[in-house]
Amino acid sequence: MLRAARNDDHRKINELTNSPKIEYLLHLADNALILSQRNSEWCGHGPVLEQDIAITNISLDLVGQARNLYQYAATLIGNNATEDGLAYLRKEREFKNCLLVEQPNGDWAQTILRQFLFSTYQYQLYQQLLNSSDETIRAIAEKSLKEVTYHVRWSSEWVIRLGDGTEESHSRMLHAIEELWPYTGELFEKAEYEEAELDKSQWLQKIEQVFSEATLSVPQNVFIQKGGKQGIHTEHLGFILTELQYMQRAYPGAEW
Amino acid sequence: MLRAARNDDHRKINELTNSPKIEYLLHLADNALILSQRNSEWCGHGPVLEQDIAITNISLDLVGQARNLYQYAATLIGNNATEDGLAYLRKEREFKNCLLVEQPNGDWAQTILRQFLFSTYQYQLYQQLLNSSDETIRAIAEKSLKEVTYHVRWSSEWVIRLGDGTEESHSRMLHAIEELWPYTGELFEKAEYEEAELDKSQWLQKIEQVFSEATLSVPQNVFIQKGGKQGIHTEHLGFILTELQYMQRAYPGAEW
Repeated sequence: MLRAARNDDHRKINELTNSPKIEYLLHLADNALILSQRNSEWCGHGPVLEQDIAITNISLDLVGQARNLYQYAATLIGNNATEDGLAYLRKEREFKNCLLVEQPNGDWAQTILRQFLFSTYQYQLYQQLLNSSDETIRAIAEKSLKEVTYHVRWSSEWVIRLGDGTEESHSRMLHAIEELWPYTGELFEKAEYEEAELDKSQWLQKIEQVFSEATLSVPQNVFIQKGGKQGIHTEHLGFILTELQYMQRAYPGAEW
Repeated sequence: MLRAARNDDHRKINELTNSPKIEYLLHLADNALILSQRNSEWCGHGPVLEQDIAITNISLDLVGQARNLYQYAATLIGNNATEDGLAYLRKEREFKNCLLVEQPNGDWAQTILRQFLFSTYQYQLYQQLLNSSDETIRAIAEKSLKEVTYHVRWSSEWVIRLGDGTEESHSRMLHAIEELWPYTGELFEKAEYEEAELDKSQWLQKIEQVFSEATLSVPQNVFIQKGGKQGIHTEHLGFILTELQYMQRAYPGAEW
């Protein structure tokens, strides 16, 4: 009965998310939530205690950003929409995160590179949102920027340490670049619900600067994988959502 | 070669941990590390976003406490002992955590109750350590007490919310008490490396006060399970250590 009521609510909520602003908020929130979920897979499994704590803290920052964005989206949607409903009850095709954040952790090098590529993008994006016409979005961007500034610094340092490290760590970074680069193009392909484009050359300049210190280089002529922003995901997202949404789907509204 | 060298180091380090003070530091650190590891299993799987963040934050506090204690132990041991070596390279029989912290998460009620029983104990313990003759231990206790004060408040509120909640949540708390109570006796059984006893009646008073608000009661005449402080563990610790130590054992010293 409870379950049926919730599904009805959810159908209504879905119809109400068809506004560019709400789609955009969900896109931003989904990016943060899914990367947070990926990073949290390291929680308690990091190679050293200090790094385990660092990646878990980044995960907490990102889930905090996701909550702020879902809460605002829920307010705009009305009809008893909640942050938890938006995170735990939407289906794979309704998630609008870019493909980069759902890619597997792989080894530590791949996790670090994914964080560096995404945080550098997110930094530029939130800088742009400081000029949003929406006061709430400006406030969320400002609060998040402090966190993202740290994420960029932390991940850059690791990219340099591993790229310019041992032969083994360097070759692991090369492999990570090969795996992840195809997913960076989508970040700069404007979706219909995005207001403005982001300047890819600015992002690339920062990446090249860090890569150069790390004795790494940016690949050329790579085929671009895209679709995530429109809800067309790689095979990985389904598994992530199964883990993430299990509790709420199995025991709707349960607190114990 | 690297592996062999580390094993030799580790054997030497083991011989040097046979002082009551170092054993005591390891006991305190292991308690915090193992409970942190258990809580971190919720990371990304909590029933609601807010609780997921709360339990992960508690996990981070505990691993921070563990690091401080391992670092101090490593300094006293010398011979290139490190916090990571103490956390990742000791064997099950060398871990001195009490059995309570290694018990399974079970459902949310059981996780909450374990946290409440342990944090109330840890609060009293760190209060006592504020009077330690060792300056470093006093400083660690003082820093940790701020965190533990929050853990006690947070877990008490949840015990009351679930105990005095629905029929379902109340019966889940009853089950959690049945599962965990046998492991509370060990907390107050002084090990040979502990300097002073803790007053169980003080702990029990706090527990009874919260239980009473939660419409729960303390069980009588329960058989006490013990051994953890001396390295004799339940079947669960081996699995926890397998997860925790996998990376360092598979790739000694690896950073990627």
